[in-house]
Amino acid sequence: MAAQQNPIVLQNQTDDLPLLLIHRPPFFTILPLTHLLSRHFHLLDPHLQPPSPSHPLPLDDFLSLHAPSLRAVVVVGIHPFTADHLRLLPSLELVAGTSVGTDHIDVAACRRRGIAVTHAGYAFTEDVADYAVALLIDVLRRVSASDRYVRSGLWPVRGEYKLGSKLGRKRIGIVGLGRIGSKVANRLRAFGCRIAYNSRKEKPSVPFPFYSNVCDLASESDVLVVCCSLTAETHHIINKDVMKALGKEGVMINVGRGALVDEQELVRFLMQGEIGGAGLDVFENEPNVPRELFDLDNVVLSPHSAVITPESIESMTKLVLANLKAFFAGEPLPSPAQEDQI
Amino acid sequence: MAAQQNPIVLQNQTDDLPLLLIHRPPFFTILPLTHLLSRHFHLLDPHLQPPSPSHPLPLDDFLSLHAPSLRAVVVVGIHPFTADHLRLLPSLELVAGTSVGTDHIDVAACRRRGIAVTHAGYAFTEDVADYAVALLIDVLRRVSASDRYVRSGLWPVRGEYKLGSKLGRKRIGIVGLGRIGSKVANRLRAFGCRIAYNSRKEKPSVPFPFYSNVCDLASESDVLVVCCSLTAETHHIINKDVMKALGKEGVMINVGRGALVDEQELVRFLMQGEIGGAGLDVFENEPNVPRELFDLDNVVLSPHSAVITPESIESMTKLVLANLKAFFAGEPLPSPAQEDQI
Repeated sequence: MAAQQNPIVLQNQTDDLPLLLIHRPPFFTILPLTHLLSRHFHLLDPHLQPPSPSHPLPLDDFLSLHAPSLRAVVVVGIHPFTADHLRLLPSLELVAGTSVGTDHIDVAACRRRGIAVTHAGYAFTEDVADYAVALLIDVLRRVSASDRYVRSGLWPVRGEYKLGSKLGRKRIGIVGLGRIGSKVANRLRAFGCRIAYNSRKEKPSVPFPFYSNVCDLASESDVLVVCCSLTAETHHIINKDVMKALGKEGVMINVGRGALVDEQELVRFLMQGEIGGAGLDVFENEPNVPRELFDLDNVVLSPHSAVITPESIESMTKLVLANLKAFFAGEPLPSPAQEDQI
Repeated sequence: MAAQQNPIVLQNQTDDLPLLLIHRPPFFTILPLTHLLSRHFHLLDPHLQPPSPSHPLPLDDFLSLHAPSLRAVVVVGIHPFTADHLRLLPSLELVAGTSVGTDHIDVAACRRRGIAVTHAGYAFTEDVADYAVALLIDVLRRVSASDRYVRSGLWPVRGEYKLGSKLGRKRIGIVGLGRIGSKVANRLRAFGCRIAYNSRKEKPSVPFPFYSNVCDLASESDVLVVCCSLTAETHHIINKDVMKALGKEGVMINVGRGALVDEQELVRFLMQGEIGGAGLDVFENEPNVPRELFDLDNVVLSPHSAVITPESIESMTKLVLANLKAFFAGEPLPSPAQEDQI
């Protein structure tokens, strides 16, 4: 890694903080992160340019102006960081992501340039796993639908709400047994579920049955929990064949990325009762959610919030800082993005 | 037990099935249960009298008519079975309940008469524990509220939904570490929670800290999960002092009985932001739920459905039959109600 050949030690350099680019959407930032980073770095944020210029510089010009001295960027959330951005930053050596997934970053182009990429590591994995379990019990036991039923005042009028289905002894197929998938598995074992998984390759240390083919996993599962990384190979990994194999009573939970699932087919399968239900925290075209889903009681919809709690933001913030400090100190990075995240 | 002194063996008596009273609300029954029981018993159901009489007999007269030969009754759901009913049934020897709790049955009066009482044992405990966990994650992570947010179309308009709070490392106080509470504890340990409990007495085999006082437990907890039996001692066990001790960020989950909580105080605490949130499957005056709760996003409301899935109904049905068969065969009952169910 280039940084290791040319270390800059941060200690006693408070007058001359290293430059750090904050790459984020115009209307979104993570305040605890930028507050913490601003104590260790001189932050360059194209959306927060000093008030002196009557017209702020366009992004490209802003980047070009600061490009020669920029060695590191923090990519906030899932804001796309593309080959076009990389071209403007010839000195870049580190892309520090704040999310677990790196599909919004052109990791291949980074690798070709020898640019290191770090991600949120384990900071969010517990929260995502918790949320996946909550979505699953919610779909099976109709928790959100029951809440709507009570709030609409129907309980005294129509009586008992329709029964849900028991979680225990359900056959759970986990698509992507990585950091998140493993935690989902551990949680669901405590409920008496039976776990199997699909992954890029079999994991010898894992006690669960492995299926090399997602369709085979689906046909042997009551529930699929989708929590793999989004890559070219996993795009639409849950297609109509998989949904057909999952079957009329089958339930699908997606806490990975929207594009892991063929959303148009999913909507069709749900509308026609060809799968049993779905718990969806992610969508193909966020923040837009197919409106056909709004009237279905067998789906639970959530605005890509599985990943975040104040506690996990604090963990992530510390991890991003640790990655940046390690980089500028020429030390090994705490959470480099792996190529095999599925 | 009287049945043991006077056993009736069921085998080869299909022509002369034992009489069994079905005690249920007028508009509710459990069909899989009555179907199964009808193959083994001659069912007497005051709400299903033969069409011959132009006016069906009032309940008291119906019971009096059949009373001399009635040795067993099945009490369906939580339909009250009182000392008044007992007085009409001088030959009664067994009250077979279909729920885990027996607070709707006058157990004390049964004991005085030497009448055995059975309950649903472990049939529903997993479902209730699952639901308690779902309600807790839902309140902490705002799952139902997020679902409302997405369905209302607000995500593209207002952006990210407000953050929830992480489950891991939360201090969970379990009120009533019986069959259900123990299963709640086991599940929540898999999420990295810290467990403590209150119970009628300390349980030596349990690895969790014991608090003899619910207020002390509340003040050391982020969450209270209420899952004890309702008795004279536990009525309003969650009163305003306990809620005050739980505090502004504290969350309460009730999957026990509505009257375990002082509901009027709970509504006041929630309205005034004096506790953080609540997940409620049970209410003091079901099916009526305080309307003030309908507009709160930090509560999850559910129509007393934690207990039931088709799978658990099947287990319960088999258990009720096993209790009845054991009774008529003069054998030990599989699931007698214990006096110390808290």
